[in-house]
Amino acid sequence: MRFVSFEQNGEATLGVRDGDQVRVIGNESLESLLARGADLAALVPSSSNGETVAAEGLKFLPPLQRPPKIICVGLNFSDHTSESKYEQPDYPTLFFRVHTSLIAHEQPMVRPSVADSEGLDFEGEIAVILGKSGRHIAKEDALSYVAGYSLFNDGSVREYQFKTPQWTVGKNFDGTGAFGPDLVTVDELPPGVKGLRLETRLNGEVVQSASTDEMVFDVESLISIISEAITLEPGDVIVSGTPSGIGWARTPKLFMRSGDVCEVSVEKIGMLRNTIVDEAPLKRPAA
Amino acid sequence: MRFVSFEQNGEATLGVRDGDQVRVIGNESLESLLARGADLAALVPSSSNGETVAAEGLKFLPPLQRPPKIICVGLNFSDHTSESKYEQPDYPTLFFRVHTSLIAHEQPMVRPSVADSEGLDFEGEIAVILGKSGRHIAKEDALSYVAGYSLFNDGSVREYQFKTPQWTVGKNFDGTGAFGPDLVTVDELPPGVKGLRLETRLNGEVVQSASTDEMVFDVESLISIISEAITLEPGDVIVSGTPSGIGWARTPKLFMRSGDVCEVSVEKIGMLRNTIVDEAPLKRPAA
Repeated sequence: MRFVSFEQNGEATLGVRDGDQVRVIGNESLESLLARGADLAALVPSSSNGETVAAEGLKFLPPLQRPPKIICVGLNFSDHTSESKYEQPDYPTLFFRVHTSLIAHEQPMVRPSVADSEGLDFEGEIAVILGKSGRHIAKEDALSYVAGYSLFNDGSVREYQFKTPQWTVGKNFDGTGAFGPDLVTVDELPPGVKGLRLETRLNGEVVQSASTDEMVFDVESLISIISEAITLEPGDVIVSGTPSGIGWARTPKLFMRSGDVCEVSVEKIGMLRNTIVDEAPLKRPAA
Repeated sequence: MRFVSFEQNGEATLGVRDGDQVRVIGNESLESLLARGADLAALVPSSSNGETVAAEGLKFLPPLQRPPKIICVGLNFSDHTSESKYEQPDYPTLFFRVHTSLIAHEQPMVRPSVADSEGLDFEGEIAVILGKSGRHIAKEDALSYVAGYSLFNDGSVREYQFKTPQWTVGKNFDGTGAFGPDLVTVDELPPGVKGLRLETRLNGEVVQSASTDEMVFDVESLISIISEAITLEPGDVIVSGTPSGIGWARTPKLFMRSGDVCEVSVEKIGMLRNTIVDEAPLKRPAA
């Protein structure tokens, strides 16, 4: 099943996509459903009142708006590690995003105004959404912890990413982390999303293209290794890494500008689209 | 006022410390109170039913167990930057902690079992707890966003911290981030906690000692600069950085071992104490 979150009558609403229609489920969030161990597959018959709305024109929200954690993986495609001028680490390179950076499908991605920055870069990725809690999860059990998958565009303000030894701020500007639109449950996808093509397009032109088979640490390895250190929880999101092709590594550098349209797509998972807008000028009181 | 969170009858409970007694306020969390803009100073007369319990022997919880964000600042004392072999960045070095790493005053700090690691290192720090939401906060307004201060021991698994270009995993093992015991409201402290002595002791011996005046980025600068990128929210915690003296930078290296007692204290804020324990051996099914 393909779950979507969207705004209806001013309230966050959960639905299930059914072709070009969305069947309305209710107002409980995916975070809450996953936290209480609900069987997502059983929700539609039990909870739907039969109302459907057109998917076209919906005001989408990120599938989860307040995941307990958003764990991002850097340097997880060796071509991208090379273009980024890093040595390939033999352990996953992790950083966190916070919920304040999240935006939804078709919501504007914001190029910040105060950045002494050329702009905003794209990173198409697959998001793994966990369905249960665990620590020290064995690799062979790891995929049983996954509830579903979605798409992510890890919009990066590069100059800020590299101002200090830690990438955090360049990865956490408000309005730069696009997430969605669908949470696709595991039964609809190959185990560990193996063998799927990931593509990022900027104004229609393909700028990133790779197979998920090229991931240095596959989904089960990521879950197992991260859980050596950190208790994973239902609703946690692992953003699994971007392939080569980022704008920062190009000559000349390619950045996203106001009005640009960036799309991330993965076979069977869907397509995530965002238009870039410049942040509104600051309204500061006159000195 | 000095707020403490603790467990009473199996429930998270909020209280106000009054000498060696704690006046019970109720079960609403500081996160929730701050999120709804409650006036902390007005809580005691309006909410207390007069019940008091002895502070001694309480089972403390972190003052906030689920802050919206835990934003840590690295390299914020130049002596520590030097001992860590980094150049001093001219921008705050940020990383996040997640709530699953938090422990309370007098709760064991866990030295992980799976780490191919010599042990666990200490980092005494001051935690800044925000009281309201903002973005693009001017430095001159920044201190009005602070609700109070607390203590933090940013327990670090150094080999994991340096496995990849990002420190994240070494800073986020379960049971390594000690936080508390008291949230001291701003009215009891000098503005921006200027001029206070921070000290870390391991088994009674002073291992870190510095004045908060030595911070490269003071509290108001941190709030202003972070908010250029990230919306700050009530309940957010900024862990403001550690001075020199860490065990990893010593010759020979000094690590915390099972049974060691680590204390972080800051004048007027209080003292945070944790005993180190080894993680319980893994219970994995036989192969």
